[in-house]
Amino acid sequence: GDPDAGEALASGCASCHGSDGIAAVDRYPSLAGQNGEYLFRAMRAYQKGNRRGGQATVMHGQVSGLSEQELRDLAAYYAAMPRTGAAE
Amino acid sequence: GDPDAGEALASGCASCHGSDGIAAVDRYPSLAGQNGEYLFRAMRAYQKGNRRGGQATVMHGQVSGLSEQELRDLAAYYAAMPRTGAAE
Repeated sequence: GDPDAGEALASGCASCHGSDGIAAVDRYPSLAGQNGEYLFRAMRAYQKGNRRGGQATVMHGQVSGLSEQELRDLAAYYAAMPRTGAAE
Repeated sequence: GDPDAGEALASGCASCHGSDGIAAVDRYPSLAGQNGEYLFRAMRAYQKGNRRGGQATVMHGQVSGLSEQELRDLAAYYAAMPRTGAAE
């Protein structure tokens, strides 16, 4: 995926996952520096309804309109972030 | 949760998630320094079958025998790890 293309898609994610990929709310996952393939598969699972309950409904809404390439770009964007969330 | 109690439970996790919580395999998530409540809820979702497909079956097997307290202890163990995975 292309992190720059992913950045353009990530405006709706920062409110829960943090602008630096570190989630301030304990029940939301931090995404900074997470493995890209995992992030892609997790978003696809929300999109296909393979993750249900709790926040899954919210996440389904967030990703339902995105193409596979857009999911890969978003995944690459967060995977490229430093795990400590420090601004680069 | 109690990280020390979690450490005793985590022997089966390291092969996929890394002994320092950094997963070498790209489709597995790194857990080091992840938010504890999220980790607890993710494991409970695997346990209850709210996550399906892909590795969900493997994860269901890994957590199916654990109590809520044990899940919280495991979550606390990984949440306490430094996000960079450097040995403390």
